[in-house]
Amino acid sequence: MARPILYIGNKNYSSWSLRPWLALKWGRIAFDEKIIPLGGEGYGQSQIKEVRDVSPSGRVPALHVGDVVIYESLAICEWAGEQAPSLWPSDSLTRADARAASSEMHAGFAAVRRDMSCNIRRRLASEPGWPDDTRTDLAQLFALWERVLKRYGGPFLFGQRSIADAMFAPVCTRLRTYQVTIPDFARRYCDAVFADAAFQEWERAGEAETWTIEQSEALYR
Amino acid sequence: MARPILYIGNKNYSSWSLRPWLALKWGRIAFDEKIIPLGGEGYGQSQIKEVRDVSPSGRVPALHVGDVVIYESLAICEWAGEQAPSLWPSDSLTRADARAASSEMHAGFAAVRRDMSCNIRRRLASEPGWPDDTRTDLAQLFALWERVLKRYGGPFLFGQRSIADAMFAPVCTRLRTYQVTIPDFARRYCDAVFADAAFQEWERAGEAETWTIEQSEALYR
Repeated sequence: MARPILYIGNKNYSSWSLRPWLALKWGRIAFDEKIIPLGGEGYGQSQIKEVRDVSPSGRVPALHVGDVVIYESLAICEWAGEQAPSLWPSDSLTRADARAASSEMHAGFAAVRRDMSCNIRRRLASEPGWPDDTRTDLAQLFALWERVLKRYGGPFLFGQRSIADAMFAPVCTRLRTYQVTIPDFARRYCDAVFADAAFQEWERAGEAETWTIEQSEALYR
Repeated sequence: MARPILYIGNKNYSSWSLRPWLALKWGRIAFDEKIIPLGGEGYGQSQIKEVRDVSPSGRVPALHVGDVVIYESLAICEWAGEQAPSLWPSDSLTRADARAASSEMHAGFAAVRRDMSCNIRRRLASEPGWPDDTRTDLAQLFALWERVLKRYGGPFLFGQRSIADAMFAPVCTRLRTYQVTIPDFARRYCDAVFADAAFQEWERAGEAETWTIEQSEALYR
């Protein structure tokens, strides 16, 4: 079978693309990648023919394996986890807990995603004031991290590095971009993610991209 | 280990609760269930102490297994799929495709969920007019169903009954409740879901519930 191809958005902006990319790298699964410039979040990916052509949902990331298109980030991570079982915790119930956290990230934290769009290389001068729902999301996020870091002992959410960390890695960059005040345990966790070699490879590529939000605005306006 | 306990909302209203409940039933996994009356969707579950007490995310469904709380519907389904592997398609890439569809349902179709809150026993007299985003969601839903029913041959989304059908079963009831005009292949698929014995067991229980939306409104106002 030919090497799988992962279609992704710009590395600086596409938080969803980062997730399965990390899982594939961590699992040492060989793949090719193709970037479709999308710009920041909130642009109508599904309107773009180039995205529709590679993904039935009209969104990237999408992994082409054989004649199947795995078009959801969590589903790509699960496929990666089948090729490389060490991507999930080995204990059945710890794995279930890690999947709950991954699913919560997949569908939740909507206010954080709305107010802190992913822009890996950006650093605000100071933390903005957040609306109530965003502060509720942040409290929920930190409560989750605190619970699992304490229970499983760190340095990653479920002990050793897992798909759950791939799911939350973009959140770590958002907290950094938006200068969010965070508790010590969250700082230590983010530092563990930022020290990861695969994360740093993505980060460097994102920093080197020249595509700007303004180009996206011009494209999709 | 004691029997797992599945905490769920009212059967008539809680679409999220139906999903893992079906997966557990289909997998012949023994469990106890406890209903926490929540009323219709859109009520602030996370504000309710009884829910907070059983779920760290402040939402049900939540499955208590040993000393772990699996608090996301998709994560509960994945746990069930590990106990009963026949809950996912046996072919690796078909399984990946089924997971993509399940993940898309988990996080997507927001407009359908907003405009067609789950109320299993309700039947509207006629189909309302839908806003643009809801019609886009419905088109996306039917495109997905058509693609996979054609590819895998039906009668369920990925051939044999799988977790993907548990994820989409509440959508079938919404299409029925809101009298949505649907293509033939979607009608046949919904009929296959409605004919399922476990689905009918849930449906009968939902129809027998006496809790009303008005009680929820009084509780959470």
